[in-house]
Amino acid sequence: MSDTVVLDVDSARQLVVSTLERHDTSPANAASVADALVAAERDGQKGHGLSRVPSYAAQAASGKVDGRAIPVLVDEKPAAARIDACRGFAFPAADLAVDWLAARATDSGIASAAIFRSHHFGQAGYHVERLAARGLVALAFANSPKAIAPWGGRSGVFGTNPVAFAAPRASADPLVVDLSLSKVARGKILVAAEAGEPIPGDWALDADGHPTTDAPTALGGTMVPMGDAKGAALVLMVEVLAAALTGANLGFEASSFFDADGDSPGVGQLLIAFDPATFSGGAFPERLETLVGAMLSQDGVRLPGSRRLESRARVAAEGLAVPKSLLDRIIGL
Amino acid sequence: MSDTVVLDVDSARQLVVSTLERHDTSPANAASVADALVAAERDGQKGHGLSRVPSYAAQAASGKVDGRAIPVLVDEKPAAARIDACRGFAFPAADLAVDWLAARATDSGIASAAIFRSHHFGQAGYHVERLAARGLVALAFANSPKAIAPWGGRSGVFGTNPVAFAAPRASADPLVVDLSLSKVARGKILVAAEAGEPIPGDWALDADGHPTTDAPTALGGTMVPMGDAKGAALVLMVEVLAAALTGANLGFEASSFFDADGDSPGVGQLLIAFDPATFSGGAFPERLETLVGAMLSQDGVRLPGSRRLESRARVAAEGLAVPKSLLDRIIGL
Repeated sequence: MSDTVVLDVDSARQLVVSTLERHDTSPANAASVADALVAAERDGQKGHGLSRVPSYAAQAASGKVDGRAIPVLVDEKPAAARIDACRGFAFPAADLAVDWLAARATDSGIASAAIFRSHHFGQAGYHVERLAARGLVALAFANSPKAIAPWGGRSGVFGTNPVAFAAPRASADPLVVDLSLSKVARGKILVAAEAGEPIPGDWALDADGHPTTDAPTALGGTMVPMGDAKGAALVLMVEVLAAALTGANLGFEASSFFDADGDSPGVGQLLIAFDPATFSGGAFPERLETLVGAMLSQDGVRLPGSRRLESRARVAAEGLAVPKSLLDRIIGL
Repeated sequence: MSDTVVLDVDSARQLVVSTLERHDTSPANAASVADALVAAERDGQKGHGLSRVPSYAAQAASGKVDGRAIPVLVDEKPAAARIDACRGFAFPAADLAVDWLAARATDSGIASAAIFRSHHFGQAGYHVERLAARGLVALAFANSPKAIAPWGGRSGVFGTNPVAFAAPRASADPLVVDLSLSKVARGKILVAAEAGEPIPGDWALDADGHPTTDAPTALGGTMVPMGDAKGAALVLMVEVLAAALTGANLGFEASSFFDADGDSPGVGQLLIAFDPATFSGGAFPERLETLVGAMLSQDGVRLPGSRRLESRARVAAEGLAVPKSLLDRIIGL
């Protein structure tokens, strides 16, 4: 691609840190955000990567996000933590949650952390993968601004609400599942709208709750959940776990993750970490490898997250290819 | 319907208890199984209700299921329990798990119980609803005999793997989500095969991994997961949580839940209970009612589980309508 610039990971990270520091963000928070965004960019999850820097910087500058917030552990029980992100970025609060969970899960068997007054969770797999790297099986649920209507309804109530899961493997990278519960990413509809092209009829609903193939109409309506009615029930489940259980803003109450207007989105996240030795009596590594072996013995089967690991390996060898237009925009901030 | 007999719930329960007791099942286990099967029948979940009695009795008689097994808490940490169902029915082990979780979740904030060497979990919502009735938010994951292929593959590895979720409400029945991760129930394909009718092309794959509309061919192949590739990733996640994490048999290792041949299916289940006051700082009841209110303010929207509650109310007023052929079969055992 002629319009990309190749950066090494450290330079990209330093660029994000310095940009955020110039936009009312503390050095510690800038470092946490930069780690997460660069990890997403490296994994090929560009929607959660460097493309977020301009809007993150604008939100910190406007005060929609408090770039200097220090997340607070406001309450804890032996296996549960309640973390106030204090209207800051999600990543510093998630870092606190990951450390707390890693310290507690083995002694308790399981531990869970709720995060509220939070912001965009980024690549949800990033958080659970860090717990798997510490030997824990992990789940994460997050809510996001309204995009999906309740089944049978017309107006957005729930976010696209990611679910992420990771499990440590003895001699391989952790197994990671990371998906949002809309049938397709909203970004795909934006691309079709910009190109003036129609979309498949099962991606989105218009403002009256009817299927539409017109991308601009779809952007004014709602996203279809993956798995239709069953998926809509899962979206509700994640909204309850990530927002109602954490005491956070619900999807339909949350402001945008993109613009710099208004108050913090104030969404929530829930992380859970399991000590596999406790639950399995020591059988977990063998059980997981037996399962993975049965999957991979079939032609055409790949593990979830394979593409992400390939992107990671490619970046390690070749560096990050970043669109020049995005890089110019970030440097110009 | 002319071929149904109306029973009151107590009589149906007593019929199940006495049938199982005549088939090598202890009185305590027969009572636990009867409670669960009658609850499913009452809720209109007939596939998990009285229709199971003949095959349960045959499995207890053949020794495939140990009807006299006493589930054992083999290991525990402050927030985690490991329960051996000892090749018995799942329900006595689930009863032990529910009691253990209800005793621990409030003190720890969260608690989780793994069950292994287990059997058919029945209506998964039954277990989490009982936790919600004790004021806890609950999740359950179970695996089941192979029915779904890994995405891109041809052979069944995973079960249809139910996910269930329940949340207590201040002035209403608990919110319950209960779904299996296949696009449709395998029973629908059985019905089409018996009727000699084709099935929609997106329900099942043949033994070569290709979509089929021929019901008998589908029965020799695999079920399509809800949500296609994303759903297949969720099926894997549930298989890891319910079977690998619990040290249980994987779906492709498990014997049938229906016939009386061979060893116990030996599948696994994972239950998780959250104390909502701990996680939400007390905000949970208001947050959940605000969410439910936003959903129900839209025409055409119903909560998941509404049909189940309607069936329950109808049975309370009118009794259980049981097919006479099934009743004759049970009485004749």
